[in-house]
Amino acid sequence: MPRVTVTRRMRFNAAHRVFNPSFSDEENNATFGKCNNPNWHGHNYMLDVSVEGPIDAGTGYVLDLARLRDIVEAQVVSLVDHKNFNLDVPFMKGVIPTAENVIVAFWKILEPAVTPAKLQRLVLWETENNYVEYSGD
Amino acid sequence: MPRVTVTRRMRFNAAHRVFNPSFSDEENNATFGKCNNPNWHGHNYMLDVSVEGPIDAGTGYVLDLARLRDIVEAQVVSLVDHKNFNLDVPFMKGVIPTAENVIVAFWKILEPAVTPAKLQRLVLWETENNYVEYSGD
Amino acid sequence: MPRVTVTRRMRFNAAHRVFNPSFSDEENNATFGKCNNPNWHGHNYMLDVSVEGPIDAGTGYVLDLARLRDIVEAQVVSLVDHKNFNLDVPFMKGVIPTAENVIVAFWKILEPAVTPAKLQRLVLWETENNYVEYSGD
Amino acid sequence: MPRVTVTRRMRFNAAHRVFNPSFSDEENNATFGKCNNPNWHGHNYMLDVSVEGPIDAGTGYVLDLARLRDIVEAQVVSLVDHKNFNLDVPFMKGVIPTAENVIVAFWKILEPAVTPAKLQRLVLWETENNYVEYSGD
Amino acid sequence: MPRVTVTRRMRFNAAHRVFNPSFSDEENNATFGKCNNPNWHGHNYMLDVSVEGPIDAGTGYVLDLARLRDIVEAQVVSLVDHKNFNLDVPFMKGVIPTAENVIVAFWKILEPAVTPAKLQRLVLWETENNYVEYSGD
Amino acid sequence: MPRVTVTRRMRFNAAHRVFNPSFSDEENNATFGKCNNPNWHGHNYMLDVSVEGPIDAGTGYVLDLARLRDIVEAQVVSLVDHKNFNLDVPFMKGVIPTAENVIVAFWKILEPAVTPAKLQRLVLWETENNYVEYSGD
Repeated sequence: MPRVTVTRRMRFNAAHRVFNPSFSDEENNATFGKCNNPNWHGHNYMLDVSVEGPIDAGTGYVLDLARLRDIVEAQVVSLVDHKNFNLDVPFMKGVIPTAENVIVAFWKILEPAVTPAKLQRLVLWETENNYVEYSGD
Repeated sequence: MPRVTVTRRMRFNAAHRVFNPSFSDEENNATFGKCNNPNWHGHNYMLDVSVEGPIDAGTGYVLDLARLRDIVEAQVVSLVDHKNFNLDVPFMKGVIPTAENVIVAFWKILEPAVTPAKLQRLVLWETENNYVEYSGD
Repeated sequence: MPRVTVTRRMRFNAAHRVFNPSFSDEENNATFGKCNNPNWHGHNYMLDVSVEGPIDAGTGYVLDLARLRDIVEAQVVSLVDHKNFNLDVPFMKGVIPTAENVIVAFWKILEPAVTPAKLQRLVLWETENNYVEYSGD
Repeated sequence: MPRVTVTRRMRFNAAHRVFNPSFSDEENNATFGKCNNPNWHGHNYMLDVSVEGPIDAGTGYVLDLARLRDIVEAQVVSLVDHKNFNLDVPFMKGVIPTAENVIVAFWKILEPAVTPAKLQRLVLWETENNYVEYSGD
Repeated sequence: MPRVTVTRRMRFNAAHRVFNPSFSDEENNATFGKCNNPNWHGHNYMLDVSVEGPIDAGTGYVLDLARLRDIVEAQVVSLVDHKNFNLDVPFMKGVIPTAENVIVAFWKILEPAVTPAKLQRLVLWETENNYVEYSGD
Repeated sequence: MPRVTVTRRMRFNAAHRVFNPSFSDEENNATFGKCNNPNWHGHNYMLDVSVEGPIDAGTGYVLDLARLRDIVEAQVVSLVDHKNFNLDVPFMKGVIPTAENVIVAFWKILEPAVTPAKLQRLVLWETENNYVEYSGD
């Protein structure tokens, strides 16, 4: 059977502060600029979850995108939507909540959650001009 | 001269908590749901600032959009970008930071700032599905 | 209190055939072209529902957009999403399902449903290049 | 019959130089900045043409949007697409090709061209952040 | 010569019903939910066709995108636009019209049609949140 | 450390004429059509610059996207924004300014400019329907 990649786009809103608690205030300001605001700022995030596999002959699906949506909603989006990445999200404890670290944390949760389908790629948009991608490397 | 409306779109990111400090916790949760998260959440906001007037014969402009951008940047965007609407923004002190209240506060600042051009309309997008408009009424 | 317009954007998918059953086949083809396909075609529709009113002092809302979303979902979207406008939608019976007729039918349902808020404007996108607006006139 | 506004979105690419030939070089640079490049620059323009009228009982249309597209293509878009507004466009001769002046020129052409439908509004996007509107005033 | 990937985005509207005729009604409802509506539903599809190859020294093109557009229009889009995937499209006969099966069918047609250029990737958007990719594997 | 791809989207406007000076006028018209307008035309270009590398433990960044933006602005965007690709851009001298040739020229500049980060992919949008990608091959 042909192997196709199918993607579900999800959206959520969250607050964060990008800083390293082991840095001095000066270092944090120099490194992170306005993203270091101690009173937080936030984003409308957009997350593309892509899984890859053969088309099932009975359904014509690689994986029902409604089921993929439910998995991502339950395992990831419900834990971060309208939350503070630094204060509210257990799996980000002790991790600087850059888009890079967030996407790797999402990968660790989603890779086992979508089996037997194969998680192929995550793309996370933080603003209309900034996005990051991760493929498990 | 013909009268044209010209618009500059601006973007900023901010955190907020939507709640009424005079409500009980139960009332706030019932009224504002997940927007009441005491640890904040945030958005990528998009703001369309529209001014209206006759076309200037010498320039072909109603108002140079680069100048409008600079006014809005200096008077509004620089005060809210990467900020917390509840904690960091003087003109939102004591005001519930809903999109409705934010847009009215922006209007009060921008209407005198763009004279002699006439501020005609503000549109503020909070998410890809929610936006508010205000025309000074 | 200032009067603000607040909008909730909704999305749904539907099939339709644009034709007049009292026309001959030739007239229908000449008038409606490929939109007259007797085997149907379809669209991803986008609907912006705008209501207008004073800001409530207690909530900072004109109307909670989550509540507006629930009203539109229950009264309109759930009746047309993944449906056929010609065959499945009672309130379109006997009406040619152009975007113009659809938006007027939506208005008749939504205007009383959003009271005491005032329905101000509907915008319905049929494709990325075609949209219609109605304000109850 | 209900009165609805229907819109067709069109797209074209063009070059221009924004300057006033009666100004000195210094005045042009001070007034128009990088838009005054004597070697031109260009844009992907987006134009929304809105006409308003009653719904026709026989067709369900205010005006067939395919017909509106053909009118706008023939009368406006074909004259400016892949053209230079300063050099190639007869109806812009002697006019500074700002978005404001372009939209007024388009209005003069389109208002009689869409009769008996009533041209209600033009919106012209020059970049993703700048757009102008005109309603014939 | 450097090897570049060039993409042309195409759009079309179609109706479909996602179901397996060898399933019982109960199985079809359980498997396909509202996509199984026997009266059809539809989408505005967006298709990105990417071909890869060396830049031609004489033209600066890998493949003239206007020519690629004409090929895709003639071989694929004209056969599915404003059509019903289940009833009107010969190359989908007996195939469940999921996005996965549609994209594989498109690949089989387009791969030989774009030679000597090399078809590298197709992306098919069914809604603003769901899309599939295929590279011939 | 996990390896992530981070992307910064940039935008600029430019004019160009797509033609081969060693071709006759007839050949240029036959080959390049309206893109061969001797009076130029133009576009709003969108450029995605992607670099790949391990996440830095101290910052949580692969590469600060504000720094990437500054590099791309200084090395590429400031040289082409509001310019004419044929007349104003030294690194395009003698090169047909197709999107394919532009993206390869950008690569040659940006690959050394982003070290020690690794330039992974450029994507250049010329219109909403046409884009090209290059990965240094």
